[in-house]
Amino acid sequence: MNDPHFRTETDPLGTLPIPADALYGIHAWRARENFPDSERFSHAWYKAVGMVKLACFNTIEKFRRSSEKTFGKTLPIQMMGPEKVTALQKAAREVMAGKHFESFIVPAVQGGAGTSINMNVNEIIANLALQKLGKAPGAYADIDPLEDANRYQSTNDVIPTALHVACLQRLLVLEGQINRLRHEIEKVEAAHRNSLRIAYTQMQQAVPSSLGRLFSTYNEALSRDWWRMSRGQERLKVVNLGGSAIGSGLASPRFFVMEAVQELRKLTRLPITRSENMHDATCNLDPFVEVHGFLKAHAVSLEKMVNDLRLLDSDLVGKNDIHLPRKQVGSSIMPGKVNPVIPEFVISSAHKVYANGLIIDSLSAQGVLDLNAYLPIIGHAFLNSIELLIAANQTLTANLFAGLKVNVNAAEEKLFHSPSIVTALLPFTGYHQAALLAAEMKESACSVYAANDALSLIEKETLETLLSPGNLLKEGFSLHDLMDGNR
Amino acid sequence: MNDPHFRTETDPLGTLPIPADALYGIHAWRARENFPDSERFSHAWYKAVGMVKLACFNTIEKFRRSSEKTFGKTLPIQMMGPEKVTALQKAAREVMAGKHFESFIVPAVQGGAGTSINMNVNEIIANLALQKLGKAPGAYADIDPLEDANRYQSTNDVIPTALHVACLQRLLVLEGQINRLRHEIEKVEAAHRNSLRIAYTQMQQAVPSSLGRLFSTYNEALSRDWWRMSRGQERLKVVNLGGSAIGSGLASPRFFVMEAVQELRKLTRLPITRSENMHDATCNLDPFVEVHGFLKAHAVSLEKMVNDLRLLDSDLVGKNDIHLPRKQVGSSIMPGKVNPVIPEFVISSAHKVYANGLIIDSLSAQGVLDLNAYLPIIGHAFLNSIELLIAANQTLTANLFAGLKVNVNAAEEKLFHSPSIVTALLPFTGYHQAALLAAEMKESACSVYAANDALSLIEKETLETLLSPGNLLKEGFSLHDLMDGNR
Amino acid sequence: MNDPHFRTETDPLGTLPIPADALYGIHAWRARENFPDSERFSHAWYKAVGMVKLACFNTIEKFRRSSEKTFGKTLPIQMMGPEKVTALQKAAREVMAGKHFESFIVPAVQGGAGTSINMNVNEIIANLALQKLGKAPGAYADIDPLEDANRYQSTNDVIPTALHVACLQRLLVLEGQINRLRHEIEKVEAAHRNSLRIAYTQMQQAVPSSLGRLFSTYNEALSRDWWRMSRGQERLKVVNLGGSAIGSGLASPRFFVMEAVQELRKLTRLPITRSENMHDATCNLDPFVEVHGFLKAHAVSLEKMVNDLRLLDSDLVGKNDIHLPRKQVGSSIMPGKVNPVIPEFVISSAHKVYANGLIIDSLSAQGVLDLNAYLPIIGHAFLNSIELLIAANQTLTANLFAGLKVNVNAAEEKLFHSPSIVTALLPFTGYHQAALLAAEMKESACSVYAANDALSLIEKETLETLLSPGNLLKEGFSLHDLMDGNR
Amino acid sequence: MNDPHFRTETDPLGTLPIPADALYGIHAWRARENFPDSERFSHAWYKAVGMVKLACFNTIEKFRRSSEKTFGKTLPIQMMGPEKVTALQKAAREVMAGKHFESFIVPAVQGGAGTSINMNVNEIIANLALQKLGKAPGAYADIDPLEDANRYQSTNDVIPTALHVACLQRLLVLEGQINRLRHEIEKVEAAHRNSLRIAYTQMQQAVPSSLGRLFSTYNEALSRDWWRMSRGQERLKVVNLGGSAIGSGLASPRFFVMEAVQELRKLTRLPITRSENMHDATCNLDPFVEVHGFLKAHAVSLEKMVNDLRLLDSDLVGKNDIHLPRKQVGSSIMPGKVNPVIPEFVISSAHKVYANGLIIDSLSAQGVLDLNAYLPIIGHAFLNSIELLIAANQTLTANLFAGLKVNVNAAEEKLFHSPSIVTALLPFTGYHQAALLAAEMKESACSVYAANDALSLIEKETLETLLSPGNLLKEGFSLHDLMDGNR
Repeated sequence: MNDPHFRTETDPLGTLPIPADALYGIHAWRARENFPDSERFSHAWYKAVGMVKLACFNTIEKFRRSSEKTFGKTLPIQMMGPEKVTALQKAAREVMAGKHFESFIVPAVQGGAGTSINMNVNEIIANLALQKLGKAPGAYADIDPLEDANRYQSTNDVIPTALHVACLQRLLVLEGQINRLRHEIEKVEAAHRNSLRIAYTQMQQAVPSSLGRLFSTYNEALSRDWWRMSRGQERLKVVNLGGSAIGSGLASPRFFVMEAVQELRKLTRLPITRSENMHDATCNLDPFVEVHGFLKAHAVSLEKMVNDLRLLDSDLVGKNDIHLPRKQVGSSIMPGKVNPVIPEFVISSAHKVYANGLIIDSLSAQGVLDLNAYLPIIGHAFLNSIELLIAANQTLTANLFAGLKVNVNAAEEKLFHSPSIVTALLPFTGYHQAALLAAEMKESACSVYAANDALSLIEKETLETLLSPGNLLKEGFSLHDLMDGNR
Repeated sequence: MNDPHFRTETDPLGTLPIPADALYGIHAWRARENFPDSERFSHAWYKAVGMVKLACFNTIEKFRRSSEKTFGKTLPIQMMGPEKVTALQKAAREVMAGKHFESFIVPAVQGGAGTSINMNVNEIIANLALQKLGKAPGAYADIDPLEDANRYQSTNDVIPTALHVACLQRLLVLEGQINRLRHEIEKVEAAHRNSLRIAYTQMQQAVPSSLGRLFSTYNEALSRDWWRMSRGQERLKVVNLGGSAIGSGLASPRFFVMEAVQELRKLTRLPITRSENMHDATCNLDPFVEVHGFLKAHAVSLEKMVNDLRLLDSDLVGKNDIHLPRKQVGSSIMPGKVNPVIPEFVISSAHKVYANGLIIDSLSAQGVLDLNAYLPIIGHAFLNSIELLIAANQTLTANLFAGLKVNVNAAEEKLFHSPSIVTALLPFTGYHQAALLAAEMKESACSVYAANDALSLIEKETLETLLSPGNLLKEGFSLHDLMDGNR
Repeated sequence: MNDPHFRTETDPLGTLPIPADALYGIHAWRARENFPDSERFSHAWYKAVGMVKLACFNTIEKFRRSSEKTFGKTLPIQMMGPEKVTALQKAAREVMAGKHFESFIVPAVQGGAGTSINMNVNEIIANLALQKLGKAPGAYADIDPLEDANRYQSTNDVIPTALHVACLQRLLVLEGQINRLRHEIEKVEAAHRNSLRIAYTQMQQAVPSSLGRLFSTYNEALSRDWWRMSRGQERLKVVNLGGSAIGSGLASPRFFVMEAVQELRKLTRLPITRSENMHDATCNLDPFVEVHGFLKAHAVSLEKMVNDLRLLDSDLVGKNDIHLPRKQVGSSIMPGKVNPVIPEFVISSAHKVYANGLIIDSLSAQGVLDLNAYLPIIGHAFLNSIELLIAANQTLTANLFAGLKVNVNAAEEKLFHSPSIVTALLPFTGYHQAALLAAEMKESACSVYAANDALSLIEKETLETLLSPGNLLKEGFSLHDLMDGNR
Repeated sequence: MNDPHFRTETDPLGTLPIPADALYGIHAWRARENFPDSERFSHAWYKAVGMVKLACFNTIEKFRRSSEKTFGKTLPIQMMGPEKVTALQKAAREVMAGKHFESFIVPAVQGGAGTSINMNVNEIIANLALQKLGKAPGAYADIDPLEDANRYQSTNDVIPTALHVACLQRLLVLEGQINRLRHEIEKVEAAHRNSLRIAYTQMQQAVPSSLGRLFSTYNEALSRDWWRMSRGQERLKVVNLGGSAIGSGLASPRFFVMEAVQELRKLTRLPITRSENMHDATCNLDPFVEVHGFLKAHAVSLEKMVNDLRLLDSDLVGKNDIHLPRKQVGSSIMPGKVNPVIPEFVISSAHKVYANGLIIDSLSAQGVLDLNAYLPIIGHAFLNSIELLIAANQTLTANLFAGLKVNVNAAEEKLFHSPSIVTALLPFTGYHQAALLAAEMKESACSVYAANDALSLIEKETLETLLSPGNLLKEGFSLHDLMDGNR
């Protein structure tokens, strides 16, 4: 083929024409032909592969220096020269910065345990490095995607390690976002600790409570979620870099096996550690199942909360305790309609997280012997869950809580009009008076105060004291409270 | 703001600067701010919205003509003039062709029951139509995204109708792909109807069978899948276009309500029909649950099949009955390794389909009263499942079955070396002889023929007849077969 | 062992003591030891195994008669004598009637593709038959669980066939229950066709509608479900009885292979047919995935409906359009509280159905080569879904719809107080008047009529006509309606 | 009604006849009518309710004593007398011991947030206590199910607290079982640390490894699972007993609110603590989502492992590295067939665990405001997962690992016949010699030693050293190893 727009690449299965200036090569191209999916691969993972490669190149350079120091220049294996290493390092740094992503042509759904991911990045890095040296892409005699860009590495260690790195990085961001949201909720909680409302169980009126208490339940759940994210990082910090094929370290120098993770740790500033059982770390994906369980718990917390908020703001409810901010026009034909789009976005995201969980759980169990072939889709689903949860927290903070309005009067009015309020009087008034009050409230559809006025049962001041936040929000009554003169 | 790079757009919530030449407008922009997801919206759905809009504009033009014919030029409502209609039709045709997708900035995961989808397309169409008339984008006094591009329509009818159209179109493609794959499998089945093999149940040797029979089970399952796709189209052909808000037809002329679906039917050449209960068709999404059940059944058929093929080709098996074609290099460090990447791609796709099912099932049940707010993510998941299954069938046809090799001898050898083969002799030889043969086969690890030679039990020719495909693949024995001289 | 309370049973793996009068035997006992699950096996499936066995014994008897007619008494194989067959038939009839279920000791979750189910029933039937003949349980020299109770059969055909029978029987019941519920809903729909209400989309007020329309959406969904159940029976009517091991018919007489299904069809009065590809029918479970998709669609319809009903009846809503019947006291400490327990039961059941679907989908894909080892748990989950849906429909009919109360006034009042109602006036009054009315309604929190009185905009009679059900529930306006004197 | 077999019970909704000697009462009966499910409720949870009730009665007795000590005998509220308390304590102890479970007639699937569970136990305890006092069941004037058996309690605190107790108890058992299994696996690992095998990735031969390493991966995963169970207990130890309705402590004495958990802690000897936010602990179920994620991770570990074991023992594999013990006859018609029923049981259990997870995840997100109505089915699913995992571990220990046989020779033979073994020689022999060896091995289908003999490439002793476990199982090579005279 003499078309100058193409170069010819070769692999053990044959040759293929590749666009002359493409950074990808024959391996990526075959993958694209084999896997006709159209979803984009995770950018975070791509960048993390660059970072892991950089750590490997740094270690290779150290290995050369250390070997030469010990054994002199005549070594039993051929070392990679400094010029080549420098070119590869520069290339890896660009991938790590997210550049050249358009040359990553392997889709999200793919076969092959990550080989195609690794190959595509190897090709990008080799070709970039060639460019740094003033060579054309494809001049693999000088820098080879496999011999050089992949030196001492294996898909089995590089790709899962990069996934761990990407997860750790994004979990840190998620942790921060959760905390920001929690901070917003805490403000509502603090402001409305004593804003009385009637609580609902099973969507029916139950007993007196406060708006602050309701928001405190959201806050508590998010506190647990926050903590979960830090636990999740703990679980995922163990990597298998240096393990080469199946964690064996096969065909890699022991120096590399021992040092590569240290280098990565330095580079990422993440508390990454080397697994004590590299085979286990290569074939078992149960940590992803476990940590995605944390992500699901967080999604559940968010879904529960926004369901509540949507309900409390709904037009079905006569007088709304809260008003969500108006963020976009809600109808193409009903003027003035505004819908709870932020809660809907969060619920949609949560269900996508649950769906990702299905992929992660079911395919993590489908590993066979020394490897799990489904790492690419498992990792993609995992990272997608993190991104969706970051998005959910972010938009909740910026587009919901920032503009949330609370209608204290509406909440209080509903409480004082609910016959259920008399339950709170029971220990003080006895059953008979309470029942009379409730009956009058129902019949006249009036407030507890109006009912008491009509029946002249309790002194108004006493009633006000009994129905004050201080009394209604106590945890249980004490005998002392009930003694004469103490209520 | 006087920056010439921006125009100012206004909606009931305020004003925003929009890039001066953008085809999208304020509604799409707000959606993008509210929904920070990064997944691309479905292209097929986008195009279908264009098609539905075109059907609406065609109907509007017909309505004007028909009204003027009946009532003359003085009509009680203002009709859209021909020039404007023509511009809108041209614009819709471009969207329908998939153009300007980069101006569709609403992501896959979103709140709002499809309002943002509709708004973004309305903006694109209005601005495109303005360009056709020589006006600048944003000159909504001339053509308005809501008043004109959305005339007589509602998100409630346009968006689900477009989803149905997109699904019908893509299901047709999937149906074709399944059939192509089925055709490839049938070839293997036909060629190997009498190629004997030992069947395995629970991964243990069972009874004699043939390779053709095994491939016939794949073929049968795909035949059902093929038929399912046609049933699926039957279920999804009912649409609610003309239903306006919640299927009420509110604020739309009866002419439009009655004619729009006809127009769409003509345009799409699909057997689309108007629902007899537009409210039901607007709020209930159970048909998607049902039809996605068909997609899942197909995914299950595929996963079962490729699991088998991967196992039969595995290195764990001593002598392989089949060899999958070598499609890409399988390892970055183990030269010569080739992996079953096509089966792995199919299994990954299948599990993504199951995950999509989770979204569809759980959120279809979360509709509230007159609408289901989660149509966008449900529709996106549904279309993604179809695309993945198209991809799976396509790559199986091109990259697996096209190059599949069958090793008839290996299969036969394993059968004749399996002591389980004697079960087939039972009705003819009685239990005793059969047991002797099996014992000898186990002890000497030899074939049934060698064992028979060693023991001199049955005449060789008789044994060959009994173990011929004709006899081994019969459905049950007849007494006649057992009579002297008939075996 | 000489303990008279025990008999000794033997299988190829050894001997075990079995309680002397137990109807189960060594195979069931080993299964119980191997599978320490505590969930009871499906009663319906157990009975269906009895029915299938009876069909087999009937066929065996026919085979003997037919063979003797053709070939005389000297046959090349030993036939089962009439006395033995009669005893086995009697035993099978008792199992079919659900008796001796306490002797079925294999749990719901089990290994082994149904072998243990078959073995346990074989043991029960053999021992029962022995009792009929005046023999003690365990006297297998006379009637053997394998040689006799299982004659010409295999777990591979008997157990899936029985599952199909059980499913068909229970789907018929479900179909009836859905229809009964539909009938109740239709009554509400018919009674309230013109009872006006405001529709809600995304829990915000939308446009005028009626209670009848809302209930019609439930009715329509259930009509589809009803039809789905009949389609489901269509899909499951194909069985593999006579297929013996893996559908091969191996070691069974062709007479039996051909006739057994006919016999079963007669016995069950179900439209059962014999598969044309017995291998496919043995190893592929995609029909269960498909039909369970129908069950899920029904569960989704039910969940959506009861979610609505619970919301409409909720205390959060000021004035309730509907009141659910009070079915049980709702709190152990809040007197008078009654909760929506029937909707909650239905939702819980629906989610169990979804969970069953996960088992069915994921394990149906895990069949290997000629069999799917997970039939027991798949079948159990499938039948459990049917039972739960029967229960849900039944309690909805008896305990919810039978006592449902509709508050027409509340619904109408909310409509006439909703500013959204003016959307319906637009084509008649124009935008200006409608906007004035809506503004007044909001400001004075009054009805549309009161607002109109205050503003003196439209003649009261005209307004009443425009807001009558006849006008509000029309599908779109006609130009004729808008002409002077026609509104 | 004068039928002496029945007594009449009354609740605010009316009266019902109840069998005269029944321990259950009208509330349980209504529940049974409303919830026509047939699955048995969890026995562990039932017993735990008894335990929680006992803790409450103990606290009530303490409260009386403490109050009388402080305030004397004249107290502002009526205290329960010692005789009644003693009778209730005795009754609670019997429930706690699992007795009278046949009187618990509420099924597993139910509406009502646990009210029916609480009511039925209240009725059993009240009626038992009456019997202790020589009274007939139903004599509620003496001991009332609500006033007495439920004193100071609420369904909202008793039922979730009991669920936590049951989970903690069963998780402890599971933890023990995991550890026992781990111990068995460790034995295999230790015995076969140096038993060489070829590793497989994606079911294709990869690089040399050992059986011990493979089993070490199972061991590691189970170690994490073991640790997860202890973390799970940590998460579930926080309870809301004393919280009364919605965690408010309403109508309960502060003494009770503060002391009840202490009493329960003493009784259960579990590290239970009182939540610091009782509202959160009442309405948020995300801890169950999180901990069930741990259970799922464990199920995934088990499924992965038994999938491997089943494959390694499969007849598809020529020479098996391992042999599973023969636990039951595997076919009703193929004599001698034994199937991998234990792995199949474990996989079935694992998928039921995943299905339970779906219920737990989706319904935990469906809590509304101050309560989650789906606690009963969530708790039931959670406990079912624990029981299934206990069963899986137990049968794996007793019925699989106890009898597992390893065939060291088969594993080694396959390794030495695999051309992949030459990868291990690369650093020592260089590429050329390795490639020659591999080619000869393939061509002659011979071992690496035979190939070396044929080609006379490497000294036999050197080859043996290079292919010794010590060398093959090293983690990476060192330059020192490669130096002359060092290999």
